[in-house]
Amino acid sequence: MVTAQSPETEQYNVIGTRPIRPDGVDKVTGAAQYGADLQLPGMLAGRVLRSPHAHANIKSIDTSKAEALDGVLAVVVNADFPRAADQEVDTGEGSANLKWVLDNVIASDKVLYKGHAVAAVAATDHHIAEDALELIEVEYEVLTPVLDVRDAMVDGSPLLHDSLHTSELDGSKSDNASNTASHLQFTKGEIDAGFDEADVVIEREFETSMAHQGYIETHNGTAYWRADGTLDIYTSTQGAFPVRQQVSALMQLSESQVKVTPMEIGGGFGGKIPVYLEPLAALLSQKTGRPVKLTMNREEVLLATGPTSGTYMRVRMGAKRDGTITAAEVHLAFEAGAYPGSPVGAGAMCSLAPYDIPNQKIDGYDVVVNKPKTAAYRAPGAPQAEFATESVLNELAEELGLDPLEMRLSNASVEGNTTAAGMPFGVIGNVECMTAAQESPHWQSELEGPDRGRGVAQGFWFNIGFESSAYGQVNGDGKVSLVLGSTDIGGTRASIAMQMAETLGIPMDDVRPQVVDTASVGYTQVTGGSRTTFAGGWAAYECAMDIRKQMSQRAAQIWEVDEDAVEYGDDAIIRGPADEDGNAREIAFKDLAAQLPTSGGHIVGRADVNKTSSGPAFATHIVDVEVDRDTGKVEILRYTAVQDAGTAIHPAYVEGQMQGGVAQGVGMALNEEYYYDESGDLKNASLLDYRMPTALDLPMIETNIVEVPNPGHPYGVRGVGEVPIIPPAPAVRAAIANAIGVHMTELPMSPRAILEATTLGGD
Amino acid sequence: MVTAQSPETEQYNVIGTRPIRPDGVDKVTGAAQYGADLQLPGMLAGRVLRSPHAHANIKSIDTSKAEALDGVLAVVVNADFPRAADQEVDTGEGSANLKWVLDNVIASDKVLYKGHAVAAVAATDHHIAEDALELIEVEYEVLTPVLDVRDAMVDGSPLLHDSLHTSELDGSKSDNASNTASHLQFTKGEIDAGFDEADVVIEREFETSMAHQGYIETHNGTAYWRADGTLDIYTSTQGAFPVRQQVSALMQLSESQVKVTPMEIGGGFGGKIPVYLEPLAALLSQKTGRPVKLTMNREEVLLATGPTSGTYMRVRMGAKRDGTITAAEVHLAFEAGAYPGSPVGAGAMCSLAPYDIPNQKIDGYDVVVNKPKTAAYRAPGAPQAEFATESVLNELAEELGLDPLEMRLSNASVEGNTTAAGMPFGVIGNVECMTAAQESPHWQSELEGPDRGRGVAQGFWFNIGFESSAYGQVNGDGKVSLVLGSTDIGGTRASIAMQMAETLGIPMDDVRPQVVDTASVGYTQVTGGSRTTFAGGWAAYECAMDIRKQMSQRAAQIWEVDEDAVEYGDDAIIRGPADEDGNAREIAFKDLAAQLPTSGGHIVGRADVNKTSSGPAFATHIVDVEVDRDTGKVEILRYTAVQDAGTAIHPAYVEGQMQGGVAQGVGMALNEEYYYDESGDLKNASLLDYRMPTALDLPMIETNIVEVPNPGHPYGVRGVGEVPIIPPAPAVRAAIANAIGVHMTELPMSPRAILEATTLGGD
Repeated sequence: MVTAQSPETEQYNVIGTRPIRPDGVDKVTGAAQYGADLQLPGMLAGRVLRSPHAHANIKSIDTSKAEALDGVLAVVVNADFPRAADQEVDTGEGSANLKWVLDNVIASDKVLYKGHAVAAVAATDHHIAEDALELIEVEYEVLTPVLDVRDAMVDGSPLLHDSLHTSELDGSKSDNASNTASHLQFTKGEIDAGFDEADVVIEREFETSMAHQGYIETHNGTAYWRADGTLDIYTSTQGAFPVRQQVSALMQLSESQVKVTPMEIGGGFGGKIPVYLEPLAALLSQKTGRPVKLTMNREEVLLATGPTSGTYMRVRMGAKRDGTITAAEVHLAFEAGAYPGSPVGAGAMCSLAPYDIPNQKIDGYDVVVNKPKTAAYRAPGAPQAEFATESVLNELAEELGLDPLEMRLSNASVEGNTTAAGMPFGVIGNVECMTAAQESPHWQSELEGPDRGRGVAQGFWFNIGFESSAYGQVNGDGKVSLVLGSTDIGGTRASIAMQMAETLGIPMDDVRPQVVDTASVGYTQVTGGSRTTFAGGWAAYECAMDIRKQMSQRAAQIWEVDEDAVEYGDDAIIRGPADEDGNAREIAFKDLAAQLPTSGGHIVGRADVNKTSSGPAFATHIVDVEVDRDTGKVEILRYTAVQDAGTAIHPAYVEGQMQGGVAQGVGMALNEEYYYDESGDLKNASLLDYRMPTALDLPMIETNIVEVPNPGHPYGVRGVGEVPIIPPAPAVRAAIANAIGVHMTELPMSPRAILEATTLGGD
Repeated sequence: MVTAQSPETEQYNVIGTRPIRPDGVDKVTGAAQYGADLQLPGMLAGRVLRSPHAHANIKSIDTSKAEALDGVLAVVVNADFPRAADQEVDTGEGSANLKWVLDNVIASDKVLYKGHAVAAVAATDHHIAEDALELIEVEYEVLTPVLDVRDAMVDGSPLLHDSLHTSELDGSKSDNASNTASHLQFTKGEIDAGFDEADVVIEREFETSMAHQGYIETHNGTAYWRADGTLDIYTSTQGAFPVRQQVSALMQLSESQVKVTPMEIGGGFGGKIPVYLEPLAALLSQKTGRPVKLTMNREEVLLATGPTSGTYMRVRMGAKRDGTITAAEVHLAFEAGAYPGSPVGAGAMCSLAPYDIPNQKIDGYDVVVNKPKTAAYRAPGAPQAEFATESVLNELAEELGLDPLEMRLSNASVEGNTTAAGMPFGVIGNVECMTAAQESPHWQSELEGPDRGRGVAQGFWFNIGFESSAYGQVNGDGKVSLVLGSTDIGGTRASIAMQMAETLGIPMDDVRPQVVDTASVGYTQVTGGSRTTFAGGWAAYECAMDIRKQMSQRAAQIWEVDEDAVEYGDDAIIRGPADEDGNAREIAFKDLAAQLPTSGGHIVGRADVNKTSSGPAFATHIVDVEVDRDTGKVEILRYTAVQDAGTAIHPAYVEGQMQGGVAQGVGMALNEEYYYDESGDLKNASLLDYRMPTALDLPMIETNIVEVPNPGHPYGVRGVGEVPIIPPAPAVRAAIANAIGVHMTELPMSPRAILEATTLGGD
């Protein structure tokens, strides 16, 4: 199925150009329809009552006064949902226990974090719904919360779930209930022997705070439960089909009974995969017989959605004098939030992957705490895990007096290596990124001035493939309508349409993509995991190949020649054998398209691809910082991101992904954290206090796209969205150390943390 | 491509059953979204200024006062539209001159009928738009209108179009401008010799009034012209793709720039194919940058949309004593309304088609008059033409003392015959319908009582095929999402889904059809011409075959056997060769569907069919009437409709089509007419005065579906919507003659007409 492409030498016509995105005008003119814009006839407004406590038993809920309020049409609580069979559901981020999915949507017997949904109201307007919340009487028995992963793992810690027992390495369950949901381990070689070989061993502990995905658009969900038992959902989501799976499972409907229409999305970064409001809207709609829309405000988003895990991590790494790393041991304890399912597994898989280290032991722990259930966040788990490993590697280089890029190069994973998690590497761009970084103007430049320093770090994300579908219709004007199921976050329509245009040999503008509902296109996985340009593009390629075949057949029919004698050229000219007079038979795509209506009808193409393969991504980042010793503030002076994109379909969007990843990584490095008090109350639940970097906090981020095409994709695509968020934190940490000689041990490395870690802050 | 089916012997599982329509619940609960329900953010309300004159030159239009009114955002007139190149456009009813299409949407230099659109306004609300209309100053030079087809054909008649010259039989144009747009002729044999052979010759003249399609839902059109030059249209239409063609041509856009979303439709009957409001909404949206919705009230519908042609017709027919028809001459002069394009061609093709008459001459004239431009109306042209021919045939039988059904049988067209228009008949059910009528309880019964009479008539409609598309997605729950481009008027979703279910061997409920916009499915022609169940069903069949093939391939892959060794059974069991242990390899569709996600991904199917063939339809109707000699009112006592449906996919909807056709045919027979005064003012532009039959006017219509499967369709479908409107008028006329001895010569045979034609009314 894979066309043997040799992109280094092959000139593409569309791929590698920078056309304006098809959804661009709608988005800048305000015409794009987001979930909150949706209006349906008879629609009701819904609001959610949320727990004021981080940990409490629910003794009773009395909704009668709220239900009696004029304008209130329905109130729902957990008990109103159908009782699910004990089953696993595919959430789009993997499998999860259905009861926990439901309990996170709306609490059953316990609330497990401040902001946990307890009840939901539908009323004729938003204000009445808001008033009704105050009339719902909930009796709580407040329990001691557990807010930190290490506290949660201690014997005798308050337990979130009496029924949760640790899944041990051998597959057994722990005898006693625990907050540790699971323990995983990857090993390679002989860890003790590896450390025996080392001349230098460094061990460090790290703590990182939960951080939110920080999408600008808050969550929304609208549902209309029709009288025939079918359910329409409109929502801001990265994956309409995973929403269909989750909602149909929660409502005990067959998946075909649920139709999900993905609205435009104002950012997701992994956090728009779980369902929060959609099931509540669905049940309220079922009760009222009318469409119900729910939207969150910013406080609700920060209290009850996202984030990525806070962690406790410990890394020990040993190397010979020449810089050869002989052994590495990684301990990762990840907060899952209130229900199991942190990204510790992905973090563990990625943690040491850039390096060919003969002896490794990586342990991961998934631990529940009284904070919101974590969700995927850009390269889930990897920024934390690689912060720990890259930081220790940088310290080793420092200790050994080696150039940190040279030391990385001498240990770099290359084609043929296999990670501790068992992932074999094919053609990868790990070394190419490091080399490009070495050769970059930034690395070649001198950095001068007091309290300034330079850091470097590597990043790895495996990328995913999985299922994507596409339909394509050839119109009489020679343009192709492309039907997709992928929510467009970072230019999806453009990058997929470009691959169809390339395959057909027609201009990008002649492919008109649109994103449709789950009943109108084949199954398509989430826009996430850096899979969309890879798998969506592959589907567009296959769909275009289906069209090419049929266009050739049509030409053969018109010319009355054998089908096998007709060829569709990459220049979009269909050629047949010469006619009796020796004249070449050929027709351009556009001209044949114009003849379709009168020669047998238009042509439609289809594809549904499902790829377990992918193209691993590597990145090397360089950062210069200046530390203000008086305030602890770290200023980013210069930033260069180098990344192997495989083939860069739309280089401007690749650069945008790289820059966006850096911005988020810098946010995690320097500022973003959840401030909980002892009672589990989140004290900074607003974007004023939850401090994400703004344009004022960042220089123009320099980008260098390395293209090592992925031989496992028709156009060499790897996927680019995730990996750039990984190197910023360890690179910034190294730069701070280089500037002021202090090795930080926590994220964020906020002014407070910097001051505490330096003598300046000490007295 | 055609599966050899033998439906007489083959038992279908789904075809022939009567499931509840998929759109039924939405329609009875009010959840179905019609064009008037549509609300878009920032949407403006539009209104249309219409001419008070039937014929006038427009000297000037001053819109300045209207534009100055607070809340008015734009006013458009014809001159605001892009000047089209001289081109033909496919309107979905055939080809038409683009300038005339535009001038009918909004008048340029002349108004040609009362209600002709002159200007359109967009304002912040409907009331302001209404007020603005009164501020538009139009200076008219009133001209004498021509309101009757015979008047219009007279030399010296006022001319509607100075540039219109008659297209003559030889393809030339007449020297002088004329109201006669074209003359067509079909001949067969030697007409004079044929009449020489006849023992009896009867010649009659007929006049029929324009009649409206009478759909309950008035026209609507909403447009949003985006800043990137693409245009979204939402409208009540029988054909979203023909709307796309018309609007893109009128706006001088490429068809792919226009996306048309067909809303649910409250009746069409042919009248919802032309565009009226959509181009006005589009231009208003372009001017304002906001969505604009226009809707018509009932008066506007009757003044400016539809109708079918009023006619003047003359038929001469000769027969031998034994009833053998030797010659027939038909003269059809059809009112086209204000612009060329009456259905006289189809009327001429159908007029004598039920009979194998050796000598025929059929002339048709397409004539413009100062009345609304005609639109397709159920079997366009045939009810009028066959009213004339069937009526004369009935009189001949009466004159010869022959049973009218026996006389028809002895002259009936059968397989192998060819019509005067050159249409060869394959397997048809003409004789079968006549025979079934003869054997019906109704025909076998006695009719007693004074002023009561029985009539019979035959009807023929050729049916059409053309292009339809379908996509299908197999979901993990074993249900299939079916994507269609056909507006659902009379159960389209059901009848197409049933054919997909039949092909896949799964229950009807497991196919979930939905109708989508023009960017999301392949080209699909209008829902009309009795083509939808035929061609849409064929597309669903091909789409299902595509799915069957892929399901077999998947099973082969799972079983690791050769693809050719796997067969998809009509029982939805996929069977492979026995395994090593001799156990049969087989898997049910639903079980394989559940395995798709984990065995390579889901499966999608596609089809785009374009069939020039079709399955001709015949019908025989019997009616008993009682005439009130005092009032002229005709009461329908009993009515039986016999019709060859080919295979009846959903018998209840076939019966519904038969009954609906009879109701409309009886309306044309007895009541429906346009009352124009001499100035061209329509005096009965409301449903109170334009009198359609209600349930009180009709008995339960008895139906008898004859099934002579069409060998040119995978399931033997013919199409059923059109033909039942044809026989009512001639059958009722025969029944009146039988009751009171008066042979009517006009339609409708209203109380006034009956009284005028009888002595009762004479003095």
